[in-house]
Amino acid sequence: MTAPKSNALAALINALKVLPGVGPKSAQRMAYQLLQHDRDGAQKLHDALQAALKQVRHCRLCNTLCEEELCHLCADESRDTTRLMVVHMPIDVASMEDARCHDGQYFVLMGHINPAQGMDLHHIALEKLIARIEAGGIEEIVLATNFTAEGDATAYVLHELLKKYPCKISRLSRGMPLGSELEYIDAGTLAQAVYERKLLQK
Amino acid sequence: MTAPKSNALAALINALKVLPGVGPKSAQRMAYQLLQHDRDGAQKLHDALQAALKQVRHCRLCNTLCEEELCHLCADESRDTTRLMVVHMPIDVASMEDARCHDGQYFVLMGHINPAQGMDLHHIALEKLIARIEAGGIEEIVLATNFTAEGDATAYVLHELLKKYPCKISRLSRGMPLGSELEYIDAGTLAQAVYERKLLQK
Repeated sequence: MTAPKSNALAALINALKVLPGVGPKSAQRMAYQLLQHDRDGAQKLHDALQAALKQVRHCRLCNTLCEEELCHLCADESRDTTRLMVVHMPIDVASMEDARCHDGQYFVLMGHINPAQGMDLHHIALEKLIARIEAGGIEEIVLATNFTAEGDATAYVLHELLKKYPCKISRLSRGMPLGSELEYIDAGTLAQAVYERKLLQK
Repeated sequence: MTAPKSNALAALINALKVLPGVGPKSAQRMAYQLLQHDRDGAQKLHDALQAALKQVRHCRLCNTLCEEELCHLCADESRDTTRLMVVHMPIDVASMEDARCHDGQYFVLMGHINPAQGMDLHHIALEKLIARIEAGGIEEIVLATNFTAEGDATAYVLHELLKKYPCKISRLSRGMPLGSELEYIDAGTLAQAVYERKLLQK
């Protein structure tokens, strides 16, 4: 492909590269598609970006993305305010709500700590979380981070930083998924399920 | 396909149908393949069946299939004889050994209890397991059955029947597999991971 002559086109192609997974070639294809075949779509994308940038902000309490000062879960007075579940991203809140197993509130870190990049704490909304806990009323903090290297590092750091507060701290259990058979499970998970086996008696 | 005229061929086709997943058509194809193209293979299969039927028996202690009175794991004196892990099938022992997380001994039920078929206890080697426990020396019984309906039923029945013995009884932990992310895990497993969350503090 030759480089586009128009400055506006070049700028659009460059701007499209901010989308995750979009490189120079995809960005060119996207730009040509929008301008040649779908100017309506381009206009809608323009308007949606403008509205979202203007209206979407972080929930004052749980830090998720929403349009009001409080998200619908933090504004719901029927939820248990003593149990705070800490997750990485807003999509994790959605998964947890689908599973209908937590009636407390959430805190969304909006990121994780990456142990391969020096455990930088600035990728998570740590100060806001600490302020939330120091405001009081929380009896249990459930660390619902992923069971990846980043999720483990995040849970470890949060436990270390939060253990001085008078709350229970727990983490989701590791082990065998529901419906699983020993024969088909990976060795690491199997070992974890043995180490963290649940005592049924004594 | 027309029915074979030879009685011996008909008997072979019929006999091949004992193999799991082999119906009348597969059995015919197998019989023709063996007799037309691979008489050597057929002879080897014949000899292997004869040797296996003669030599393979159940380990006196753990009930797995082996050729000696004791399998190599029960005969290994370096293993911890106070911790007995109960599994469904010999393949589960192999999975567990691959995971290198259990240095105790095993008991192989050689089946499971099927709640859809009336919880029949005759599909598992229950009497042999009880005799093993009554012989003494066991401090913990780890129920390492699958997390399927059959595995759950088997664990439940075993716990009920064995709780009168002075041993700890535990079961593998349920929860999130290693490397898993909340976003991609099924709702049932996620709920289980919350219910059985691990307390890190207090």
